[in-house]
Amino acid sequence: METMDINADLGESFGNWRLGNDEQLIPEITTANVACGFHGGDPVTMVRTVALAQEHGVAVGAHPGLPDLLGFGRRVLSVSPEDLHAYVLYQVGSLQGVLAARGMSLHHVKPHGALYAMLRTSEELSEAVLEAITAVGPEPLIYWPAPLDGQAFVGAARRAGVHVVGEIYVDLDYAEDGALVLQRTKGPTGLDRAIARLRRFLEQGTVDTVGGGSVPLEAESLCIHGDGPNAVELVRTLRGVLGDLDVAIRTAGAPAARGTVRGRTA
Amino acid sequence: METMDINADLGESFGNWRLGNDEQLIPEITTANVACGFHGGDPVTMVRTVALAQEHGVAVGAHPGLPDLLGFGRRVLSVSPEDLHAYVLYQVGSLQGVLAARGMSLHHVKPHGALYAMLRTSEELSEAVLEAITAVGPEPLIYWPAPLDGQAFVGAARRAGVHVVGEIYVDLDYAEDGALVLQRTKGPTGLDRAIARLRRFLEQGTVDTVGGGSVPLEAESLCIHGDGPNAVELVRTLRGVLGDLDVAIRTAGAPAARGTVRGRTA
Amino acid sequence: METMDINADLGESFGNWRLGNDEQLIPEITTANVACGFHGGDPVTMVRTVALAQEHGVAVGAHPGLPDLLGFGRRVLSVSPEDLHAYVLYQVGSLQGVLAARGMSLHHVKPHGALYAMLRTSEELSEAVLEAITAVGPEPLIYWPAPLDGQAFVGAARRAGVHVVGEIYVDLDYAEDGALVLQRTKGPTGLDRAIARLRRFLEQGTVDTVGGGSVPLEAESLCIHGDGPNAVELVRTLRGVLGDLDVAIRTAGAPAARGTVRGRTA
Amino acid sequence: METMDINADLGESFGNWRLGNDEQLIPEITTANVACGFHGGDPVTMVRTVALAQEHGVAVGAHPGLPDLLGFGRRVLSVSPEDLHAYVLYQVGSLQGVLAARGMSLHHVKPHGALYAMLRTSEELSEAVLEAITAVGPEPLIYWPAPLDGQAFVGAARRAGVHVVGEIYVDLDYAEDGALVLQRTKGPTGLDRAIARLRRFLEQGTVDTVGGGSVPLEAESLCIHGDGPNAVELVRTLRGVLGDLDVAIRTAGAPAARGTVRGRTA
Repeated sequence: METMDINADLGESFGNWRLGNDEQLIPEITTANVACGFHGGDPVTMVRTVALAQEHGVAVGAHPGLPDLLGFGRRVLSVSPEDLHAYVLYQVGSLQGVLAARGMSLHHVKPHGALYAMLRTSEELSEAVLEAITAVGPEPLIYWPAPLDGQAFVGAARRAGVHVVGEIYVDLDYAEDGALVLQRTKGPTGLDRAIARLRRFLEQGTVDTVGGGSVPLEAESLCIHGDGPNAVELVRTLRGVLGDLDVAIRTAGAPAARGTVRGRTA
Repeated sequence: METMDINADLGESFGNWRLGNDEQLIPEITTANVACGFHGGDPVTMVRTVALAQEHGVAVGAHPGLPDLLGFGRRVLSVSPEDLHAYVLYQVGSLQGVLAARGMSLHHVKPHGALYAMLRTSEELSEAVLEAITAVGPEPLIYWPAPLDGQAFVGAARRAGVHVVGEIYVDLDYAEDGALVLQRTKGPTGLDRAIARLRRFLEQGTVDTVGGGSVPLEAESLCIHGDGPNAVELVRTLRGVLGDLDVAIRTAGAPAARGTVRGRTA
Repeated sequence: METMDINADLGESFGNWRLGNDEQLIPEITTANVACGFHGGDPVTMVRTVALAQEHGVAVGAHPGLPDLLGFGRRVLSVSPEDLHAYVLYQVGSLQGVLAARGMSLHHVKPHGALYAMLRTSEELSEAVLEAITAVGPEPLIYWPAPLDGQAFVGAARRAGVHVVGEIYVDLDYAEDGALVLQRTKGPTGLDRAIARLRRFLEQGTVDTVGGGSVPLEAESLCIHGDGPNAVELVRTLRGVLGDLDVAIRTAGAPAARGTVRGRTA
Repeated sequence: METMDINADLGESFGNWRLGNDEQLIPEITTANVACGFHGGDPVTMVRTVALAQEHGVAVGAHPGLPDLLGFGRRVLSVSPEDLHAYVLYQVGSLQGVLAARGMSLHHVKPHGALYAMLRTSEELSEAVLEAITAVGPEPLIYWPAPLDGQAFVGAARRAGVHVVGEIYVDLDYAEDGALVLQRTKGPTGLDRAIARLRRFLEQGTVDTVGGGSVPLEAESLCIHGDGPNAVELVRTLRGVLGDLDVAIRTAGAPAARGTVRGRTA
């Protein structure tokens, strides 16, 4: 039976400020990307988020970002490889401390915001991050938007022997080259369009592009934006689609599951 | 043969700002308390400090503080037990991430500044910190100024089965009840006075007090303030005293070493 | 004709995180207390909030807090008078910079959160804040919960010749000595109870206490908590009560208005 | 008589961390650029620095930077014009608050670090900063490294009618196009070379370039790096050179002084 993982960014609140609908979203997902205090999140939020994930049997990964709380990690900052290596060790380590208190271990790492954008093209920053990730975890996974080929970070991961879990985004558009078209403001995601996109992917292994073409995706995980206005309704609907097509909803990482990933040449 | 540990606070620089003389001090000590970014230190400084410690065979512990960079963690902040539990998990975890990158593991935890002062008397904050410390490490040590009895934090540590390494301070005065008399400004430490204090402790297990009395100390470690103007000269002199009295200089923690600690009833 | 001011805390968002309903609340109030970046708010939020206030003819005051973004300025921090003096100069000055860009000037200063609590009793911190406030503005006002007598900060203000605008809170309870009973969690405010409290104050100059007594209040301003679930409905209802009793709704500060304040011996 | 201004960056300490030799440097300069808390400095440091400047009759300007304390404002951050406009209003306003407490007013604004680098080429960021600067001060000056022509920020200043005070740097090299060649690490500045550079400028209005050519500079101010190892000796030597050539040392800004600036076509 085929499987699909569903991941979402969680724990993005900061101190007194709330962000997202973690409590409502978590029963619907299999994997959480938890902010580590640099762009969002704080120690108390991390402890609460990890407890919530444990309660719902959700795997927890680190969602490290740039040290820019004011800009939510969405602004490019010209960090050096030495800076970034240390920032990732620090953030992932902090989450591992929180996980250790619940007897849990780190599932994966997913770069956030402008850091993600910088890692798409920078070889030396990618190497610095990989060096940190492979140091802190015994067998780490990386989450990254598919298509994977041609991205500096994915190349560095593969050279380091780290498995990259490709993601599909049903609430964003795809350019002709497979790049995600980022939205300025986040409106509700059209359910019909999201259903169609997921079905197309599950049946054909591709997504349609804004220009009318299609690109193949090697995706093991469906990424949900938890701060969308209808995020919970959206993920419930998509779970229904997966069920209709006999796709089991399960966190990525088990070798068996990885053997039957859509869009990958086995 | 008896042994003595020598510890110092290291890695207290922040970004572009330098503090302390880590490079000169580290060859003289056995154990480093490394700041974790809340009151001082930052990820890059932590990585460099841990590398330096490894190069010199120095054991590394976490030196967590209150989230008050502006006040260097020296101002009391009315955190809740939930806050503090999370802050300690986060800070210790972050250092463990940095240590993991060098194949090292956490040696101990030593609370910094105002956090130390708060833990002297608060039972509930002490419990919260202990819960965090016992969660992150398999067999953690705690460093704390002797005399140990009557301190809320030491009581909580003992109830949790965590060994507390008592410290002697040769550059601070002791009140009649054994409390350290904190200095407002840090001048050079008189070498003769420091030598006399250390000799008295090694020979009789006590320190003299400002009022003319003396108190017994159960100390396994000698704490050096690395930011004093003559810190390096001081520690070299004290190493000489230890050598003269046939005391081996060795990091605390090995059961054999702990069996022969001065001032403790075996 | 008698007058009443209505004030609320505004601009408490931070970066990507939203707090409060500033857009909906601002048409209903006369005076805004704007956060200055230490406990909440940030430069962009301040610029937007001041523009909104200008658009609605609302007077703007500074709402300085302790440097504790993580705790939203609600945790006591043992700052020195020198620290606090500088923090207030800095925060009020920063808001004045933002006001200058709109051709506006500072209306008042209202201490936030734990800073407010500390100023209730500390003479030396109160003096330090007053020294800052009188330095930055030509004729500053201070907002403070009534009853005013017996508060260290009010005494310091009076000695400095600064007028203190007393406030009434209809959504909090009053203890026998007039102290506000702070709520742990913020539920919706009962409209009937709020109406009754405001009417009692307007007709008799007193508020009822939790113990069944009553205390006189010298209040020129009604403080609304903008983050309450029914804040907008509440303030609209209270405006109706003021209208029924022929009380003009107008920002505090004009000498004529101050001559007819409820509860003050003229 | 001709005049020359001498400016230096001051107040770059942060909390417990010291940077620079402000006390020794300030008797030798006429104008201070004071950090405002975003890349360095903090409210207490600002208050102390402004008091020191007043004591020595030194004019005070704002030295705003990017919100990156960890990187000392030396890393490019992709801020929007709206962000930057607000950051400058906030920082300059905060310094004006501190100045108001001493009865002083703002002398000038000088962008720091990576912000300076970004303003060399970005028209829209330059416009945003100018809009802020002209809003907060009645007749602001801007300090900027000469040669001034061809810099986006200088163009925006001129369009806004703001006078730009050109600076000469005697401890940095100049490229053929007049751009400063930034050093990686700061060693002591060679006195002979600095003297020769200053003499050449005073006598011919030019500086030599690394390629063997020379470029004309329109400089009213000599910028000293206060964190150089021999900064105090350097500035004293240069004051001697100015004295030998009958150049009065005086802060920039008075129209009479500006009429006789070296290198400008009157």
